[in-house]
Amino acid sequence: MRRNSLGTLLHHVHVSGPLSRAALAERMGVNRSTILALTADLAAAGLVHEGPPAGTTGAGRPSLVVRPESERFWVLAFDVAVDRLVAARVGLGGTILARRERQRARAGVDLETVVGTLAGLGRELVAAAPGGSVCAGVGASYCGMIRPGDGMVRYGPEMGWVDQAFGAELAAALGLGLPVAVGNEAHLGALAEFQRGAGAGSPDLIYLHGDVGVGGGILVGGKLLGGEGGYGCEVGHMLVNPFGGRPCLCGSRGCLEAETGEYALLDAAGRTGGAIGAEAVRAVVGDAAAGDPVAAAAVAAIGDWLGIGVANLINLFNPGVVIFGGMLRDVYRGAAPQVAARIAEHAMPVSRERARLRVSALAADTTLIGAAELGFTGLLSDPLSHSPGQAQPDPAAAAGSCHPA
Amino acid sequence: MRRNSLGTLLHHVHVSGPLSRAALAERMGVNRSTILALTADLAAAGLVHEGPPAGTTGAGRPSLVVRPESERFWVLAFDVAVDRLVAARVGLGGTILARRERQRARAGVDLETVVGTLAGLGRELVAAAPGGSVCAGVGASYCGMIRPGDGMVRYGPEMGWVDQAFGAELAAALGLGLPVAVGNEAHLGALAEFQRGAGAGSPDLIYLHGDVGVGGGILVGGKLLGGEGGYGCEVGHMLVNPFGGRPCLCGSRGCLEAETGEYALLDAAGRTGGAIGAEAVRAVVGDAAAGDPVAAAAVAAIGDWLGIGVANLINLFNPGVVIFGGMLRDVYRGAAPQVAARIAEHAMPVSRERARLRVSALAADTTLIGAAELGFTGLLSDPLSHSPGQAQPDPAAAAGSCHPA
Repeated sequence: MRRNSLGTLLHHVHVSGPLSRAALAERMGVNRSTILALTADLAAAGLVHEGPPAGTTGAGRPSLVVRPESERFWVLAFDVAVDRLVAARVGLGGTILARRERQRARAGVDLETVVGTLAGLGRELVAAAPGGSVCAGVGASYCGMIRPGDGMVRYGPEMGWVDQAFGAELAAALGLGLPVAVGNEAHLGALAEFQRGAGAGSPDLIYLHGDVGVGGGILVGGKLLGGEGGYGCEVGHMLVNPFGGRPCLCGSRGCLEAETGEYALLDAAGRTGGAIGAEAVRAVVGDAAAGDPVAAAAVAAIGDWLGIGVANLINLFNPGVVIFGGMLRDVYRGAAPQVAARIAEHAMPVSRERARLRVSALAADTTLIGAAELGFTGLLSDPLSHSPGQAQPDPAAAAGSCHPA
Repeated sequence: MRRNSLGTLLHHVHVSGPLSRAALAERMGVNRSTILALTADLAAAGLVHEGPPAGTTGAGRPSLVVRPESERFWVLAFDVAVDRLVAARVGLGGTILARRERQRARAGVDLETVVGTLAGLGRELVAAAPGGSVCAGVGASYCGMIRPGDGMVRYGPEMGWVDQAFGAELAAALGLGLPVAVGNEAHLGALAEFQRGAGAGSPDLIYLHGDVGVGGGILVGGKLLGGEGGYGCEVGHMLVNPFGGRPCLCGSRGCLEAETGEYALLDAAGRTGGAIGAEAVRAVVGDAAAGDPVAAAAVAAIGDWLGIGVANLINLFNPGVVIFGGMLRDVYRGAAPQVAARIAEHAMPVSRERARLRVSALAADTTLIGAAELGFTGLLSDPLSHSPGQAQPDPAAAAGSCHPA
């Protein structure tokens, strides 16, 4: 009970930032003396501190607010994206404290290379962290299908990975004595946008993440749709074009990602063999907006397929919000009329009446922030087990800092 | 707490039939003396009785089993299906005690006619019920989109209904002093098959109900996928054929139900304008199996579209089981090779590895049983509030029987 209450209070300040005791009491449905006691415990463990609200001047006596100790407790977050490998130190409260990034080659990058690069970046971040600060966990986002529990990549089409022990290998290479929690990038994006982005307050949420492929993260009643084995939400391989569709990395043809991914757009714009990546996508969308007819036709064509996919999802999930992330942010901005027209044509009026369409609020950091949230799970479920002031059964897991073993 | 335990015990014997005290103790994780006390309360209220197991002979002293009082506590269940209107008295335990059925015309049947017919059948069933027996609730299944809470039909394409107060009108016409809980037929079918059919033990379940249209009921983690407004699961209007697809009752073209519903099959078999309904569908599938090449090609073509729809659902939901109900039972039996081939081609291997394909075990009664389960919800959540031996705040709701007011 008490552990739950401590976790709930810490979760509130982690997600919402500084909150007064009165606000916490109202959110948690308990009285202020309970908040006082919980806050005292968390403060003693170094997880929060109380102080005047920002912008307070000397006059009067402002009511204090509870703040997360963002510099002191942090997680390592990793993002294996289609064009880069990212590592960050993210503080309690969700602030990115420091980051390192490496471009990566498309396709054919092996497990050893990815793990070696990420572990190197991670160790740099740990070495540069302030003395006495605490690494509370490690989370990673990967652009593929992840087995829950152990972070095994069951299928990573863009890299050609099948059954690669990514989570375990990265944990071993980091040598921090901490497990690495791994999630699919779009799943994590959905959770991040729900927690602190364009989907806040919408427990029935669809997040679509586009780059070379198109991934989906779907929340049903505030929970990630897992399915029997945790592999649900594979929106990218929904067949939308059954007649001569474009070939897909999965081996099939006409999948949503084959028709709406980066290469579909660049090919439709007549830019096959030219520049690739997020900048190239933005260039097509920008040229379309500036009146280039070939670029405009390409954006419209991709928007039509995207709209069909979204209409199908609206029929199936009756969502409160659909969020476009990754390069689909740019595509949606350019193709909103086509997407709206397809939804009007193919989604049932009752199903679509409450569905808002948004671009991701966390922008390029959506999946990285999602990975950080995964890393914070343990701390938020049992705050005092991670604090340096408490007796620790496992010294490696909470040694006051997490410099390499 | 006690109310919950009483409801849980009653739920177990309702779903599983006679159970020994030992079996109940094990399922509920409590000791036998608790089961004894709970059983005594439920028996005093007339909801269960204890006796020797079925098939017991005189020799020895068998351990007693707890049985639901199926004849004494029952619900009225209604099913507004595409070709008929059904009313049934369904006993605690799920047994259909009595039923009445009327064929109905296709399309254009108005609310007043449907409500009048169903209420008449319902009153007949109530009048014929044994004296002293108790009507514990009323549930109804409707082939359209239903607003949660009040049973408003938001959209019933086959009948052309928009915003018709079906639940309230049926309750008024019955005059039993009981509300009518209404659900979409495929939603209720999914719950029924999960509770006592082909999906038992599979909390991630997809139920597809076919007739003129194709409805879906999808369970995610054992709960019906509702979405923001309760209108999720509209699988029938997933666009599968974006190029010149068949027109759909919803006004669009190429929807899954337009390509796989009854008329699609009959038209493909060259039987446009002939017999319609379940028998006509079975005739096509039967002729296909017997070697009629036109019928075989029709079944295969429908099976291809059905397989595309199922593959998409497997990618999205990673289900443990997909169940074919209504006329899709027959179509799936005839078109299993096409469905399997499309799944192999379009569903990700990781997504489909645990997905079993089954036909509905409750057959033509799936949706009716689902409606009955909806009717039992109140009794199972608070068993003693419905018993005639208890003080009742609302005499109309539990008057010992529910003859028309």
